[in-house]
Amino acid sequence: MTTRDTLFSMVSEPAAETGNRVTIVGVGQVGMACAFSILSQGISNDIVLVDVMEDKVKGEMMDLQHGSLFLKNPKINGSKDYSVTAGSKLCIITAGVRQREGETRLDLVQRNTDVLKFIVPNLIKYSPDTILLVVSNPVDILTYVAWKLSGLPKNRVIGSGTNLDTSRFRFLISQKLGISPTSVHGWIIGEHGDTSVAVWSGVNVAGVRLREINPSIGTDEDPENWKQVHKDVINSAYDVIKLKGYTSWAVGLSVASLASSILKNMNNVHAVSTYVRPLHGLDYDVFLSMPATLGYNGVVDIVKQPLSSSERCSLKFSAALMSEVQNGVIF
Amino acid sequence: MTTRDTLFSMVSEPAAETGNRVTIVGVGQVGMACAFSILSQGISNDIVLVDVMEDKVKGEMMDLQHGSLFLKNPKINGSKDYSVTAGSKLCIITAGVRQREGETRLDLVQRNTDVLKFIVPNLIKYSPDTILLVVSNPVDILTYVAWKLSGLPKNRVIGSGTNLDTSRFRFLISQKLGISPTSVHGWIIGEHGDTSVAVWSGVNVAGVRLREINPSIGTDEDPENWKQVHKDVINSAYDVIKLKGYTSWAVGLSVASLASSILKNMNNVHAVSTYVRPLHGLDYDVFLSMPATLGYNGVVDIVKQPLSSSERCSLKFSAALMSEVQNGVIF
Amino acid sequence: MTTRDTLFSMVSEPAAETGNRVTIVGVGQVGMACAFSILSQGISNDIVLVDVMEDKVKGEMMDLQHGSLFLKNPKINGSKDYSVTAGSKLCIITAGVRQREGETRLDLVQRNTDVLKFIVPNLIKYSPDTILLVVSNPVDILTYVAWKLSGLPKNRVIGSGTNLDTSRFRFLISQKLGISPTSVHGWIIGEHGDTSVAVWSGVNVAGVRLREINPSIGTDEDPENWKQVHKDVINSAYDVIKLKGYTSWAVGLSVASLASSILKNMNNVHAVSTYVRPLHGLDYDVFLSMPATLGYNGVVDIVKQPLSSSERCSLKFSAALMSEVQNGVIF
Amino acid sequence: MTTRDTLFSMVSEPAAETGNRVTIVGVGQVGMACAFSILSQGISNDIVLVDVMEDKVKGEMMDLQHGSLFLKNPKINGSKDYSVTAGSKLCIITAGVRQREGETRLDLVQRNTDVLKFIVPNLIKYSPDTILLVVSNPVDILTYVAWKLSGLPKNRVIGSGTNLDTSRFRFLISQKLGISPTSVHGWIIGEHGDTSVAVWSGVNVAGVRLREINPSIGTDEDPENWKQVHKDVINSAYDVIKLKGYTSWAVGLSVASLASSILKNMNNVHAVSTYVRPLHGLDYDVFLSMPATLGYNGVVDIVKQPLSSSERCSLKFSAALMSEVQNGVIF
Repeated sequence: MTTRDTLFSMVSEPAAETGNRVTIVGVGQVGMACAFSILSQGISNDIVLVDVMEDKVKGEMMDLQHGSLFLKNPKINGSKDYSVTAGSKLCIITAGVRQREGETRLDLVQRNTDVLKFIVPNLIKYSPDTILLVVSNPVDILTYVAWKLSGLPKNRVIGSGTNLDTSRFRFLISQKLGISPTSVHGWIIGEHGDTSVAVWSGVNVAGVRLREINPSIGTDEDPENWKQVHKDVINSAYDVIKLKGYTSWAVGLSVASLASSILKNMNNVHAVSTYVRPLHGLDYDVFLSMPATLGYNGVVDIVKQPLSSSERCSLKFSAALMSEVQNGVIF
Repeated sequence: MTTRDTLFSMVSEPAAETGNRVTIVGVGQVGMACAFSILSQGISNDIVLVDVMEDKVKGEMMDLQHGSLFLKNPKINGSKDYSVTAGSKLCIITAGVRQREGETRLDLVQRNTDVLKFIVPNLIKYSPDTILLVVSNPVDILTYVAWKLSGLPKNRVIGSGTNLDTSRFRFLISQKLGISPTSVHGWIIGEHGDTSVAVWSGVNVAGVRLREINPSIGTDEDPENWKQVHKDVINSAYDVIKLKGYTSWAVGLSVASLASSILKNMNNVHAVSTYVRPLHGLDYDVFLSMPATLGYNGVVDIVKQPLSSSERCSLKFSAALMSEVQNGVIF
Repeated sequence: MTTRDTLFSMVSEPAAETGNRVTIVGVGQVGMACAFSILSQGISNDIVLVDVMEDKVKGEMMDLQHGSLFLKNPKINGSKDYSVTAGSKLCIITAGVRQREGETRLDLVQRNTDVLKFIVPNLIKYSPDTILLVVSNPVDILTYVAWKLSGLPKNRVIGSGTNLDTSRFRFLISQKLGISPTSVHGWIIGEHGDTSVAVWSGVNVAGVRLREINPSIGTDEDPENWKQVHKDVINSAYDVIKLKGYTSWAVGLSVASLASSILKNMNNVHAVSTYVRPLHGLDYDVFLSMPATLGYNGVVDIVKQPLSSSERCSLKFSAALMSEVQNGVIF
Repeated sequence: MTTRDTLFSMVSEPAAETGNRVTIVGVGQVGMACAFSILSQGISNDIVLVDVMEDKVKGEMMDLQHGSLFLKNPKINGSKDYSVTAGSKLCIITAGVRQREGETRLDLVQRNTDVLKFIVPNLIKYSPDTILLVVSNPVDILTYVAWKLSGLPKNRVIGSGTNLDTSRFRFLISQKLGISPTSVHGWIIGEHGDTSVAVWSGVNVAGVRLREINPSIGTDEDPENWKQVHKDVINSAYDVIKLKGYTSWAVGLSVASLASSILKNMNNVHAVSTYVRPLHGLDYDVFLSMPATLGYNGVVDIVKQPLSSSERCSLKFSAALMSEVQNGVIF
């Protein structure tokens, strides 16, 4: 009789899973910051890492496991084989290739589509009821690609979109005002990246719109030049990458907040990339970020923000461009 | 068009539940301390209160809901109608009548059995896959009764047992040693209450058994009289009831720790009341507390502690008495 | 040599405190819900209970201590002697008498002033650098009284005010909209109770003001009758008291959120009762709730919300009445 | 008047700090995993990063700040200038150079001593009341060096030591037994690294020593070869480094657990590197890991574990070697 058999009298089989499994595809800095944020904040107790780099995924799995005493006794698994992801409630896709010098945007999208062509069907095969959360860039187009590849309904394919841009926006405003980021409210919507839209009309503290105090806020006429905050948001990723080589912590925390709203069925409003036709007159099959409620079924409601004509124009411009790129993609 | 319809564009139906629903039967001080501990520690985000006192259950539900902004946006429901409990993963039974003056133990058990005869079938009807966690006293016998009434397998009917006694034991020792309760290890097993057994042989700090330092620890010969700690544990409930009228916080936290191990599939070892035949030579159909691992399937393994002959004798004595009482119960 | 001495080799004296001590005066349902919320959410690890009812305070202390294994190993103390409160960073006053049938408001205020005349000097004596957080009712006037009795600067005497009313307001709106309370933004300001002011102009979701969608929201002309939500907020306490006998959980969580902003120096905006002269043209020495940032120094900034003339009028009316009552108080 | 001035009415200056500031020296993978673990688990709300690499430290600071919306509104600062660390309660040193190929141990220690000669006086200059927590390797010798350089009392200079080895040990045993790591108790003491000592005599589950079940456990005679677990612990760091290039998550969580015990004054027992003379007959001025209670004053008590003669011999051997290396160091 082994030590184990002598020590225990078995009553039942341990449960293999609890319905809260989260798979993270890609164990680079972003994927691992997502995994670690989810574990250290107790959002899920059942994490699976997947990556083609067999050694890396095993190393990351072991490193997390060695710290599991300090967490809530989570199950942590990792492999290059997708069978370990079976039954995932949420699959977070952080894998993807980076833009090469001189490469066109369409070429990049095509290369990452080819990556998703392998990942998405494997995820759906083992977790047909999952929600897909796409983090890889360009996130809006790749969310569309993942949706097409998956065959899932619109509510179950979500892009991390401008949830992070919004977090940066609120932080930077909070620093100018000397209050906490959670007490500053404002939204960045549209395309994640250079063409994102700051909805200055809604920026407020305790319901007081800054535009009521400073009518030219966000415009070129503003003597306080608040517009710079949005520019700083857009430059944030570039700045951080220049300084430390990549971004990780903020995107990890941002994705963990989305995972929390989904897994705990919170119905919180987040700026995420979702299928937007025909909102704001957008007549394209594209995914863009809008404030939307997230729960255990994925996207429940999209908030219809009243936008200025220039804001609507920006969205339409992004949508048209994305649609054109998408039309060139070979599935 | 209503404000809601104008504000939102619907994408999907919100999810009704997430598989982590916890029902608490009985909204007295104990039941509410359990509910509040589970909510404030984020153990479940979906709580249902049930009680025959319709007003009380509605008042408690509203009071919790009014604080939900400060929690993780939980769903909180309450009713005297068991249909609201449907799909619960865990049902915690705190309802029951108290001992009348001069009442025999059997009479009390019979009256509480009659209460369970109403509660248990209703719970099972709406949540056939649930785990039952019995807190009402006398907890060991009532766990047996709930098991019989439910028809569930042994692993899915659990009594809160000596998990609380163990917590008090570790706290009281920690105060004598001047260290944290979590750094003191020791177990109270057997019957919850006056006849519980303190397993002095296993009491340790960092693996150092106090018995190795003080060989007479826990016995009448001990010049430091550590035995008094166990007496204080037994008197704890009486003392607190005498001082404040009832016990609530510690039992609430204790039950929440069990709920956490179960819902998060932790496989933590807790002292809980479980079906013990034939462990330690116990030849009775009774539930007594032993260290046992708890996960998403309920009890997984019972730890077979080596006991002294006097410890085994105590257990056997309790078991025999309980068995006799149980034989008198009319189902 | 004792077991303790044999087990340990002492290196240094344990620390008596960490600068985060929270004293709670009054161990009724409200005081204990505050204490338990603070402990179970890990906001402070050092809690002191004080009350004239020596038995009750000892019973509550023991009950919390017995659960400390399941918390973060907090220090929990309790006494009727204020010397145990020494060095508190935050003192929460929940003690006070209730209105007798037929009693005038001034009589009630005078009786509670007499209670504070004993409590406040004792708190200040042992914790001269503390922040006072008054929860007892009528909270706005008693916060003024505590300020007068304490001799503390305005930033360090705070009333829990309409933080709870605001929480109820956001919850009730969230239920009508089908989203999470934290995603609904709105503020109840002014006097805590029947004359509170709902600032409908600022109510918003993702920066979208409901008034932009429904221009008559909050008025008698609104066909959807959203005004009822504010009435329900005002009736909440009465309703809950009628149903369960008292309110506790929501106020406990609400106070814990204020304690967290203060102790962790968050600079979050909360609706709390603070000295308001001369804001909104209020020319009285009174405390009323306004959105204000809270940090380790107490109140840092008050948000100057643009108010309608009827809202300003309501505030002025409350202020005048309170000022009159205050003038009758014998210190 | 600026937007800020129009929005707010100032009541008091915001507080600069709360007494819980944690400085982390070194923003490599280990330092950042420590910082992120402390922030994401809410252990401190005031973090300062210091490193000579000015760009890297700024990039890491910004990346954390961009995620602060999803934390508890922490203050996050970073610089190469030590003045920003002023008033730190805890300073965690993760900086240091790595062993070069062919380099002797003494040479490595000397090079890292030279690094500490710059870091430690700067930390003490700005935070004379701080506790130093050394993580850089070889951790035991560098903790001694930091102690010498700092002039602090023994209780306030701590090495992370075998807290991580112990975590790995408990995890690996837990996997063999099929229970949670927190339910397995065992200790790795002595020198962090290849010569660490597994105290098999104390390994237990629910107070049941595995040695009572399997008397040869941990020895070469054990047919179940549990000794391999200790070998796996020793190889863990090598294995993870081979697979992913470095270790980070487990050490980050391990250090965060120490920070939590210290900052929250928990008096938890951890295996940390501390001044051990004359325990276990060790007659050298060295730091080795022993189970010790940690609180707001640093090390309070060391647990005197009864050791076998071979365990004592291993400790003595490590101590003699370390002492010799230390004697060669030029301060």
